[in-house]
Amino acid sequence: MAGNSIGQLFKVSTFGESHGPALGGVVDGVPAGLELCEADLQIDLDRRKPGQSRYTTQRREGDEIKILSGVFEGKTTGTSIGLLIENTDQRSQDYSKIADVFRPGHGDYTYWHKYGHRDYRGGGRSSARETAIRVAAGGIAKKYLRQVHGIEITACLSQLGPIKAEQFNWQLVEQNPFFFPDERKLDELDEYMRALKKSGDSVGAKVMVVAKNVPVGLGEPVFDRLDAEIAHSLMSINAVKGVEIGDGFAVVEQKGSEHRDELTPEGFTSNHAGGVLAGISTGQDIIASIALKPTSSITIPGQSINTANEAVEMITKGRHDPCVGIRAIPIAEAMMAITLMDHLLRQRGQNPDVQLTHGPIKASRE
Amino acid sequence: MAGNSIGQLFKVSTFGESHGPALGGVVDGVPAGLELCEADLQIDLDRRKPGQSRYTTQRREGDEIKILSGVFEGKTTGTSIGLLIENTDQRSQDYSKIADVFRPGHGDYTYWHKYGHRDYRGGGRSSARETAIRVAAGGIAKKYLRQVHGIEITACLSQLGPIKAEQFNWQLVEQNPFFFPDERKLDELDEYMRALKKSGDSVGAKVMVVAKNVPVGLGEPVFDRLDAEIAHSLMSINAVKGVEIGDGFAVVEQKGSEHRDELTPEGFTSNHAGGVLAGISTGQDIIASIALKPTSSITIPGQSINTANEAVEMITKGRHDPCVGIRAIPIAEAMMAITLMDHLLRQRGQNPDVQLTHGPIKASRE
Amino acid sequence: MAGNSIGQLFKVSTFGESHGPALGGVVDGVPAGLELCEADLQIDLDRRKPGQSRYTTQRREGDEIKILSGVFEGKTTGTSIGLLIENTDQRSQDYSKIADVFRPGHGDYTYWHKYGHRDYRGGGRSSARETAIRVAAGGIAKKYLRQVHGIEITACLSQLGPIKAEQFNWQLVEQNPFFFPDERKLDELDEYMRALKKSGDSVGAKVMVVAKNVPVGLGEPVFDRLDAEIAHSLMSINAVKGVEIGDGFAVVEQKGSEHRDELTPEGFTSNHAGGVLAGISTGQDIIASIALKPTSSITIPGQSINTANEAVEMITKGRHDPCVGIRAIPIAEAMMAITLMDHLLRQRGQNPDVQLTHGPIKASRE
Amino acid sequence: MAGNSIGQLFKVSTFGESHGPALGGVVDGVPAGLELCEADLQIDLDRRKPGQSRYTTQRREGDEIKILSGVFEGKTTGTSIGLLIENTDQRSQDYSKIADVFRPGHGDYTYWHKYGHRDYRGGGRSSARETAIRVAAGGIAKKYLRQVHGIEITACLSQLGPIKAEQFNWQLVEQNPFFFPDERKLDELDEYMRALKKSGDSVGAKVMVVAKNVPVGLGEPVFDRLDAEIAHSLMSINAVKGVEIGDGFAVVEQKGSEHRDELTPEGFTSNHAGGVLAGISTGQDIIASIALKPTSSITIPGQSINTANEAVEMITKGRHDPCVGIRAIPIAEAMMAITLMDHLLRQRGQNPDVQLTHGPIKASRE
Repeated sequence: MAGNSIGQLFKVSTFGESHGPALGGVVDGVPAGLELCEADLQIDLDRRKPGQSRYTTQRREGDEIKILSGVFEGKTTGTSIGLLIENTDQRSQDYSKIADVFRPGHGDYTYWHKYGHRDYRGGGRSSARETAIRVAAGGIAKKYLRQVHGIEITACLSQLGPIKAEQFNWQLVEQNPFFFPDERKLDELDEYMRALKKSGDSVGAKVMVVAKNVPVGLGEPVFDRLDAEIAHSLMSINAVKGVEIGDGFAVVEQKGSEHRDELTPEGFTSNHAGGVLAGISTGQDIIASIALKPTSSITIPGQSINTANEAVEMITKGRHDPCVGIRAIPIAEAMMAITLMDHLLRQRGQNPDVQLTHGPIKASRE
Repeated sequence: MAGNSIGQLFKVSTFGESHGPALGGVVDGVPAGLELCEADLQIDLDRRKPGQSRYTTQRREGDEIKILSGVFEGKTTGTSIGLLIENTDQRSQDYSKIADVFRPGHGDYTYWHKYGHRDYRGGGRSSARETAIRVAAGGIAKKYLRQVHGIEITACLSQLGPIKAEQFNWQLVEQNPFFFPDERKLDELDEYMRALKKSGDSVGAKVMVVAKNVPVGLGEPVFDRLDAEIAHSLMSINAVKGVEIGDGFAVVEQKGSEHRDELTPEGFTSNHAGGVLAGISTGQDIIASIALKPTSSITIPGQSINTANEAVEMITKGRHDPCVGIRAIPIAEAMMAITLMDHLLRQRGQNPDVQLTHGPIKASRE
Repeated sequence: MAGNSIGQLFKVSTFGESHGPALGGVVDGVPAGLELCEADLQIDLDRRKPGQSRYTTQRREGDEIKILSGVFEGKTTGTSIGLLIENTDQRSQDYSKIADVFRPGHGDYTYWHKYGHRDYRGGGRSSARETAIRVAAGGIAKKYLRQVHGIEITACLSQLGPIKAEQFNWQLVEQNPFFFPDERKLDELDEYMRALKKSGDSVGAKVMVVAKNVPVGLGEPVFDRLDAEIAHSLMSINAVKGVEIGDGFAVVEQKGSEHRDELTPEGFTSNHAGGVLAGISTGQDIIASIALKPTSSITIPGQSINTANEAVEMITKGRHDPCVGIRAIPIAEAMMAITLMDHLLRQRGQNPDVQLTHGPIKASRE
Repeated sequence: MAGNSIGQLFKVSTFGESHGPALGGVVDGVPAGLELCEADLQIDLDRRKPGQSRYTTQRREGDEIKILSGVFEGKTTGTSIGLLIENTDQRSQDYSKIADVFRPGHGDYTYWHKYGHRDYRGGGRSSARETAIRVAAGGIAKKYLRQVHGIEITACLSQLGPIKAEQFNWQLVEQNPFFFPDERKLDELDEYMRALKKSGDSVGAKVMVVAKNVPVGLGEPVFDRLDAEIAHSLMSINAVKGVEIGDGFAVVEQKGSEHRDELTPEGFTSNHAGGVLAGISTGQDIIASIALKPTSSITIPGQSINTANEAVEMITKGRHDPCVGIRAIPIAEAMMAITLMDHLLRQRGQNPDVQLTHGPIKASRE
């Protein structure tokens, strides 16, 4: 399959480069009857917009979403939904000198080798701009999941460089530009970011995404296990280098007697599994984390080559994101929503007589 | 899509439960003309076979692979290849008492909720037995990748519980039953496992899989990025709770100036990216790691419930694997092979005029 | 996608050549809880078996179906079902002389050019033998559709050479080896076939397949319209050269005033559409017909070439089917069932709140 | 899969209703390096435009195609191409009275039952307007197939009502508004259409589409046989009720000795097969025909019901197409191109060492 589509029953196909006229996509498989309007989707796009915090890129992207089909008299018709965002702020001139240079850490080198002919302005198709449409599509899924099944999906920044959240106050997440949930460390985070921006360098981040109230039974073993599909959709986000579910890499050192989530008539006693067991949702919170690498677009010079294989020195001027991870929060939520939506429809298609049930009382994990 | 298939141009579909008559599958999309016979696939199955080390399960599985179609006069014909393994050693009676009980940490609970009717003997479809066919299918891919493109895929145990490999001697990997690459820690590992088995508990593991000599240009952005697809196929292995590429979760604390792999006319100077950049292979070694949870089939009692929601106590008697992670080595290689094979064909189909090239001299990472 | 799979939620993947050890497949997406056993599937295989009438091939195929997974205690578990049929009667020696010759009208020429290396014995993968597994898979779908939704699928021979059925007595269809529904022409048909067999030639046929009691609402516009998917699955049967729905090619000369099926509060007044309108089932009988070409395996000599591009004369000795069309009846039913099953699950997944309804009283068409 | 996408390696996903703001789509899998601009696609859209002949609908649709991504400096980049057509001429008021009425022969009834909530203006998603994007996408495929492989795809009206073309002058096809190839019958056709329009009725049509210079070896047996995929994509066009390949339904009465295309060292001696044998292209012209039903939007009154199941009388006022079949010519070419493009890439991915060859000298069939 050509790679710009994801999903089976709920399928999202996208197009668009950072410096092209527009970004857009087709969202197919939305059941009919859902109330939907552009404002529903604009919310998440605004959360994603750079310029919101003084630390993220100053590029003002506009990002006004339009719905071009699939909605009539305020409700979805079950037909494919066309989405469009026109690109307004691009500042091409920032990139004109580097047409033949491969910026390290970016897709320039690999896109050139894969396709032969590439749009060198900004990241082209490999730019994070392309995720705007995913966020809009994810917004449709989030609305359906919430309204019809009470499923809530939220993400937060759980770690930035060396600074780890140790408390998780979800209300706080929407109230600071870092989406950070630990009040006690906010000042430290702010300090750290100032210093980083000044230094011209960047740092990585860890983002946690949680889905609450997911019914038992989602996931299609053995290859489309729910965790495998979540890993796929989260890893498809730019800059992600790792995905973990539940206790993730901590399980390596755990004993079986510690790790297993025991069951009682009142419910699970723990959630080391992160809500997925044998590839199927358990009804507990689904908890996933992603590791985002530090951006290579930094003002510290580095070595590279050009298309003639000659050595050149690279400095990125202009926009500089000390931590791209922060921008991934709405994207991670969107991808989780897209995957859960697809699996909800698939389970419903395949096993309708087995009610989409919620398991016994769940112990949540922060 | 029903979940028992993976891949687009190179597609593997499987069936079979731990206690059914047989396991099998269809491998579709193997190009014609490849020399192939059952012995080629038996090698990897034997590496996977429990009973090989005194620490892994004593269940002798037989695992004799048969090729039922798609090969004529010793070469593939391009038509679908049918694979079959008859189940010979099952010992059903071990499981008869637990028909209505949900073993914690296993798929019993989730399968029951998803399907309503389940094969309660052993893990049924959720058992690791099912991976035998994946290993065989992966064997076909490995042979093709090696013969036609010189691509080599190997995995090893990089960490067991608290014991981390610090040196990587790949020759050693095939010479000890742990697939462990660090000679200096072998005795420690052996000791640890004895104690663990005696205690009746289990521990997790980390497995690293490396693909060498992969051409530049594999991967289909934005959703079928190579790393996203690798994450999908590795996470689909039983007991996996995390996947990382290159530096993985270590990137969270890295600076951009450290992380980025610079380019010189002689090649990359490092491989923090793990061989994938912007979702496309760079030509450097592809390095992925997976975290495997400790098995819940331990002889230490635990709490659970039955289908009537009554509290019961669980003890697993019989087979006890103190570390299932060891068994994942051939499976991880197989899944990596399956994914790379699919992407090789897809790139070849889509961009044939851009030669499958190998980039400049690569810096390998151990 | 590699081409040996069909379907999305209900997916069938097959393997097997006419002269290989076995035929088999994976049927994925069968909902759990359906009672199923080998006898259920053997019925349709026996209807397909050559040797049943003195006019069809004398090759006794055995065709004993085995279910290797996905069924436990007599009911489906929702996991993938493995099917196997061992090939018993092959008589390889019939084909040994023609390894390098392209039999006209067969896949020899095209398979050789596509793959380079082919199994020359019989039709190999292009042989109609491969449809045995489709018939078994279709049997699973037929059972589910009938039991759960009351959908009945039957086919008959509507025309053989110049002899057209003008009355349709469906009871008669199972009582004669031609599956022919017009009692008054049976003798004529029998005569015609004797003469044909004697002459060493063959003739084409037309098969009609009808699905009764299909709910309104199946089909996924615009590309997976139900009629487009039916056309796909029927055209995939060996020897099919045309597919039509409802009035089919007769619509070319129809006026709009004649063709349209008007609606009254009691139901449709006609069924020119054949049960599908705008790509979605109307609730009326779905009526499709296929045109099957005459086999080229005839005892009348013909010209051909060999792999060295030299002229050779072809005579097929041995098995000679004067009319392969007759054998297509169970296959056409199976393919219709496979397609309807897939769409039933897809509609159920996507629009569960819109009940799978049956429309108003339908006027059937013979 | 949600039904608004078609293709595997070359995938087209569309959205848009007749009375929505715009139509659009994503075309994914176009190899990089193809010169492409909007003018290339506008040509086929203009051929499709109603109003071109005095007999087709007077609705002026504008249909100005925009390319929003995937092309840089005049060449494709290999990334997904976004297409957009804004709807300009709609005249909503024509439809306002029929919100609750099911127009016979249209998708109103089936869409209402499938989705529950429908856009009642014009055909909504079931309108032929939606094919505009298919024509544009097909234009991309046509260009690639022609430039890179010399493949030419053309269609014509081979029959309108009772008037059959008996000579095929392909130059003539583009010179008359009927796309009719038989000069001697043009006046008769014109007369017939005048009378028909005056009567307020409509008639069906047959369209033939031919692909020349197709390499041997395209098609993926057994389910994605080339003819099965062509049948799928052609049957997905609005109003199509039948598809045939080569001699099509005429094979029913043919003898094997007549039908088979014999081979000589100079090439095939005939082309009854229509360019596809055992599901794979032979190198001869691929010849397919489709039957298009007469439109039900006629000015002759008919019976129907409304959503409350009450009897109503239907008359379509306003736009009246006496023969929609004529408009299908560019759409049939587009769908053929889309299918061949997908299979070209798939064969290239799977069997690159077997050159895409052209077989021996072919005998063409008119």
